[in-house]
Amino acid sequence: MSKKRVVLALGGNALGNNLPEQYLAVQETARAIADLIEDGNEVIISHGNGPQVGMINNAMAAFAKTEPKHPHVTPLSVCVAMSQAYIGYDLQNALKEELLNRGIKKNVATVITQVRVDPEDPAFSSPSKPIGAFMSREEAIKAEKSGIQVMEDAGRGYRRVVASPKPKEIVEIDTVSDLLNAGEVVIASGGGGIPVIREGNHLKGVGAVIDKDFASCLLAKQVNADVLIILTAVEKVALNFGKPDEKWLDEISVNEAKGYIKEGHFAPGSMLPKVQAAVEFAESGNGHTSLITLLQKARDGVNGKTGTRISL
Amino acid sequence: MSKKRVVLALGGNALGNNLPEQYLAVQETARAIADLIEDGNEVIISHGNGPQVGMINNAMAAFAKTEPKHPHVTPLSVCVAMSQAYIGYDLQNALKEELLNRGIKKNVATVITQVRVDPEDPAFSSPSKPIGAFMSREEAIKAEKSGIQVMEDAGRGYRRVVASPKPKEIVEIDTVSDLLNAGEVVIASGGGGIPVIREGNHLKGVGAVIDKDFASCLLAKQVNADVLIILTAVEKVALNFGKPDEKWLDEISVNEAKGYIKEGHFAPGSMLPKVQAAVEFAESGNGHTSLITLLQKARDGVNGKTGTRISL
Repeated sequence: MSKKRVVLALGGNALGNNLPEQYLAVQETARAIADLIEDGNEVIISHGNGPQVGMINNAMAAFAKTEPKHPHVTPLSVCVAMSQAYIGYDLQNALKEELLNRGIKKNVATVITQVRVDPEDPAFSSPSKPIGAFMSREEAIKAEKSGIQVMEDAGRGYRRVVASPKPKEIVEIDTVSDLLNAGEVVIASGGGGIPVIREGNHLKGVGAVIDKDFASCLLAKQVNADVLIILTAVEKVALNFGKPDEKWLDEISVNEAKGYIKEGHFAPGSMLPKVQAAVEFAESGNGHTSLITLLQKARDGVNGKTGTRISL
Repeated sequence: MSKKRVVLALGGNALGNNLPEQYLAVQETARAIADLIEDGNEVIISHGNGPQVGMINNAMAAFAKTEPKHPHVTPLSVCVAMSQAYIGYDLQNALKEELLNRGIKKNVATVITQVRVDPEDPAFSSPSKPIGAFMSREEAIKAEKSGIQVMEDAGRGYRRVVASPKPKEIVEIDTVSDLLNAGEVVIASGGGGIPVIREGNHLKGVGAVIDKDFASCLLAKQVNADVLIILTAVEKVALNFGKPDEKWLDEISVNEAKGYIKEGHFAPGSMLPKVQAAVEFAESGNGHTSLITLLQKARDGVNGKTGTRISL
């Protein structure tokens, strides 16, 4: 087994939905990551933050409503920053502990990471990602007047919707590289990263969420990783998923994957963006392999034994 | 001017009390820090988090009361982690922008930092630091039953009190050093650090707050800094402060400083802990200088022109 540089994109299952769940979930997650490190791989971890940033955003918004001394709603970008620390703190400790239990002395660092997006990204003109608590019609009208876009959500009330623009640049990429070069395990680009736009020398937070698989793909490209692992709830990607002629995919080429995407095999908002991110990384360079599999199969997948592996 | 390794401990004034204030305050703070970097110094920034962690802690506690899906109160240690990202994100951007405006290309990174404390620290048996929102008598009784220590606060109601133990170890010190060695500016140990105790290989968050000046002193010792700057609201430390025979101090020895402490010149909870932290760093090594001054005088102070400077 040769040493590889691996970017691991953790999904919601790896973290749980609240703090007690997270505390337990990260222990199992840590074991799977420690396996990769024990094999000699360099590991960079990115992760989602859906439930966590939702909770923080809702808590800060409710607080701004009721606390006269803090009437300012904490921007979504700041909530993403907070979620990176909330998750990173637990995850780095669980991993460090698992490594020490195995006699491996390695530092694990959480990097507060911003990801630049393009203000001209078409996503900004059709925000589609619902976030935050449900609002009444009155609250929704008030929110819209203050410049926040709102959508009715299937009869359950109104919710804020934000754009999900494509990530363009991992702002703290040098920090990630410096830590990797020093032999550290790095947690970066949590929750897809804090979304910012560039205005001259100024970075400005924007109310958006970045898909964590696309952000992980960009991170993998920018650190020139060998493997991008996108974790999901199945061991392999399937054609005709759930149908009688279901077929699990092992090793496929970028062109095959693109063909399957065109044929509509993958569900939008679910497996489709994962396969798209996997294709984008795989086609970014010879020797770049994307792996889609279960957390518990990550080690076997990196060693070519399971999962769906996509390369040029 | 020779290049020095400088740890800068920012106080509350450098950050403001809420997000709009913070956004403005960090711009001035960034200019003062950029001055030090422009002079060729290596800079590590630590900061307080009183108002910020107070807000986060209160928001998360209020949310746990009203949101049935999130009944778990976010521990104080996690709130500290969140405050490090909340502040670090703003501060690193303001500083990066100021540096770019001056044509200086340097990375600025925020490190989520834990600080180990001793579970046997006497502070734990007499918690004295009030945090969080005021409670009614009924709420206070309920809180005490759940194991939280509560104190009556000058007739204004009841508040949780936590210990303020002495910092023993900056857990992420290697990460700080790796980034310094790579030429980065580092923001670390925010809010005194996330307080943890060690149980074997496990680090466990504790409900405590660590004095940021003592944490900065430990950070300065652990990175073998040349200068520890403790910022405050006055340009110099005074003997007989506010009295007719007030005397501003320029350059003093550790022994002189200890004598003044004994004579009761410095107010507990205000200038006293700053002078104590300054003395502790100054006596930790030949060539270690502590400087107590205003943010705007930091550059002049490092160059020996103002502030109160303490060394062996």
